[in-house]
Amino acid sequence: MEISKSVAQMKSSYIREILAAATDPNMISLAGGLPAEETFPLKSFEPILAKMSSEPKIFQYGSTEGHLPLINYLKQMYHLPAEHSLAITTGSQQGLDLLARAYINPGDTIVMESPSYLGAMQVFDFVHANVLSVKQTQEGPDILELEEVFSNSLPKLFYAVPDFHNPTGVSWSLKVRKKVAELCIKYNVTLVEDAPYRDLRFIGENLPLVSEFCMQNSIVLRSFSKTVSPGLRVGVISGKASYISPIVKIKQGADLHTSLPIQYLLLGFLNSDSYPAHIINLKSIYSNRYDYLSSLLTAKLPPNCQFNPIEGGMFIWLELPQCDPMHIAKALMSNGVAVVPSNVFYHQSASVVPALRLNFTNSTPEDLEKAVDILSLTLHKEFTGSEIG
Amino acid sequence: MEISKSVAQMKSSYIREILAAATDPNMISLAGGLPAEETFPLKSFEPILAKMSSEPKIFQYGSTEGHLPLINYLKQMYHLPAEHSLAITTGSQQGLDLLARAYINPGDTIVMESPSYLGAMQVFDFVHANVLSVKQTQEGPDILELEEVFSNSLPKLFYAVPDFHNPTGVSWSLKVRKKVAELCIKYNVTLVEDAPYRDLRFIGENLPLVSEFCMQNSIVLRSFSKTVSPGLRVGVISGKASYISPIVKIKQGADLHTSLPIQYLLLGFLNSDSYPAHIINLKSIYSNRYDYLSSLLTAKLPPNCQFNPIEGGMFIWLELPQCDPMHIAKALMSNGVAVVPSNVFYHQSASVVPALRLNFTNSTPEDLEKAVDILSLTLHKEFTGSEIG
Repeated sequence: MEISKSVAQMKSSYIREILAAATDPNMISLAGGLPAEETFPLKSFEPILAKMSSEPKIFQYGSTEGHLPLINYLKQMYHLPAEHSLAITTGSQQGLDLLARAYINPGDTIVMESPSYLGAMQVFDFVHANVLSVKQTQEGPDILELEEVFSNSLPKLFYAVPDFHNPTGVSWSLKVRKKVAELCIKYNVTLVEDAPYRDLRFIGENLPLVSEFCMQNSIVLRSFSKTVSPGLRVGVISGKASYISPIVKIKQGADLHTSLPIQYLLLGFLNSDSYPAHIINLKSIYSNRYDYLSSLLTAKLPPNCQFNPIEGGMFIWLELPQCDPMHIAKALMSNGVAVVPSNVFYHQSASVVPALRLNFTNSTPEDLEKAVDILSLTLHKEFTGSEIG
Repeated sequence: MEISKSVAQMKSSYIREILAAATDPNMISLAGGLPAEETFPLKSFEPILAKMSSEPKIFQYGSTEGHLPLINYLKQMYHLPAEHSLAITTGSQQGLDLLARAYINPGDTIVMESPSYLGAMQVFDFVHANVLSVKQTQEGPDILELEEVFSNSLPKLFYAVPDFHNPTGVSWSLKVRKKVAELCIKYNVTLVEDAPYRDLRFIGENLPLVSEFCMQNSIVLRSFSKTVSPGLRVGVISGKASYISPIVKIKQGADLHTSLPIQYLLLGFLNSDSYPAHIINLKSIYSNRYDYLSSLLTAKLPPNCQFNPIEGGMFIWLELPQCDPMHIAKALMSNGVAVVPSNVFYHQSASVVPALRLNFTNSTPEDLEKAVDILSLTLHKEFTGSEIG
């Protein structure tokens, strides 16, 4: 049976290979975007898991939108206006996939930051969207370029990760947030705001969602994969009710609904006294790991390999002198460190800034130190011609 | 933001309305395909749930194919040949959706039984398949018609539910199973064998999967929604490895993977001593309910409302004299009983046999009795002109 054209055009994903190689216990992986296993709130889950077996309703079929008590809880937690609704998805990756299927016809134009989240590029390519890229600066997307693209191409949506962007770690400035919202309203572009890292701010003040400045023109994707547990597979998609109902229609055919016992478990944890302390603890661990990795990189890497400081999230974006970042990633992998080369985060039309994405949340300080020693050797050899770091 | 053409063409699903109305506590529902909540093996889940909190790995990201220990267990349980593989899906509904996306281009011809499972029709319509229907007889699909369609239209796949078919309850005879497999090989059509009810045989001997006669030309969809718990959302898709890998590629973009703690829970239960006894108990309860409903229908309904006996599954297919089955379903709903009218199970091109699908697994004997009294009154009024049953 011949595969569909949509699958045939999918590129074999190098990140799949990296992530597979990264499971080798002899490899130190800074490749994935994995949270630290030791942070999973397993003790807090215990009493909730123990109560599950007296709740037959959560083992029956449920409604496609999700477990109603969880929906109601999240509507309050996110201060959704009355005319907005939300649906629980099987991870926020599913929210993205459903959204693309609900709104994109082949050839429809959409805009993404450049570089951007690989999983979003896959989803938009799969529905044959015409993807345009706008350069990411240290404050967010280049506003002049964005307005030019909006006015010339009248795209349907703009997909963006304003908080601790994947892969660059950038947090958009307040000024850029307001300006992007203004442009979305002016050109009637729907902002798809993907916010999986939003709750992981280590320093600086919380900034409003971009969507708060364009409530009628936006859809927000949230996830509990980075803050509670990715294995659960629970994400949330929200926006005005008319935006969410076509997504729910597609979800019905896609998986009927997301696992109910898991939604019950998550709600129990969000409702518990441990949740706020859990988030504080998580941020403190990640902040320490970030500080440690960034000080090691500053101390040991060649001066022509640079990164900008971040205020939260999971990634450092290490920019390199002109080179093939894939070649560097392969050299590192053969020395025992997995990282993701920047080229995988760029759409085919965009020009690639050579860089490596380094994750710091899923490695111990000892492993971070070992990894930087290997990075240092490899990058010195490559970019200073010297064998010694 | 304008919705995609695929969503725009979706018909508003009457079954959604029925299922919504059926949640009214004053309504007796024979509408859904829901298992009985009192059969959920909650006691057996307890020790497995209690162990979860010492398994951090199941709360981390996992592989798209599924939880490896569950995959290995199921490969043995289903006696899969070495060159076949399987993937765990978020309910077997997801398997169906991924399969359609992996293999169907707009306009590709596929064949379905007529009537057929509504959720499959939605999925194939969504990818703009050209759907052809083959009449379902008491032994399975009409073989002459099937061969004619295969030879004239060279379809890509044939979607079928050979065990206790939804909605008719038919179990294909051994002869038809062999013949369909032979035709699939002869015309190089892939059989998509959907088997959610397979383990629910009350009487008669187990028959081989149709796929066992055409191993290289088939994909099998299985589900734990009917035998363990639908709220979990765990299904299985299997076939030769080259058939499954494109499906896994799409699943990666669709939800990364199915909830891992849930896969762990299911595996724990399948591995426990309670599983075989659970299935025996389940079949005995459903068999009793079926016997009760069928004897009540035989005793109380007008003689021109008839049904064929079934050997398992969840549904009785009550054929009616010429009428608009939707009209009858609405009359029944206004009298307090929800059923599904046959027209929703036919593709637009097919001619509708007037009938009602009656579920017996999710109602107590008392409710079944009340429901038949209302059915009797309504159908006598409609088809015998008499007010008394």
